[in-house]
Amino acid sequence: MYVIVTYDIEQERVGKILKVCRKYLNWVQNSVFEGEITQAKFEKLKLELQENIERSRDSVRFYIISDKTLVTVEVLGQEKGSTSFMY
Amino acid sequence: MYVIVTYDIEQERVGKILKVCRKYLNWVQNSVFEGEITQAKFEKLKLELQENIERSRDSVRFYIISDKTLVTVEVLGQEKGSTSFMY
Repeated sequence: MYVIVTYDIEQERVGKILKVCRKYLNWVQNSVFEGEITQAKFEKLKLELQENIERSRDSVRFYIISDKTLVTVEVLGQEKGSTSFMY
Repeated sequence: MYVIVTYDIEQERVGKILKVCRKYLNWVQNSVFEGEITQAKFEKLKLELQENIERSRDSVRFYIISDKTLVTVEVLGQEKGSTSFMY
């Protein structure tokens, strides 16, 4: 399955969340990751994020699509997908 | 069609981009909008964004899915979707 993750995390935790997401998915824009992932790994990703966010203050959104071919991606401006911009 | 928009915009332009997106889609998280939109309105949204971003410095990503039922959304932590948090 294909997953897009967007997050809005308070400053003190954002570095840790970035590290967790990077283990499973591809960084494409600040606070946005995407990629193919198995159900088992997706469950692990969610668990790790759950352990590291502050539920009352942080927000993580998962868009789960059964097949990447069902999604068309368009970009305006910079295609940030290189790691040099990450935060 | 269903569109998710994520953007990474420099501070001086982010307010304008927020206003443009709000005319067409629903704010769900900082720098993330989503919603049902017609092809015609989607073209208008892209045009307006193109006129307001700095292509060499800003990044707008569109995920286009033919049908909302093809996407499952899960949220960890805060469901920010109310306008009180917007920026």
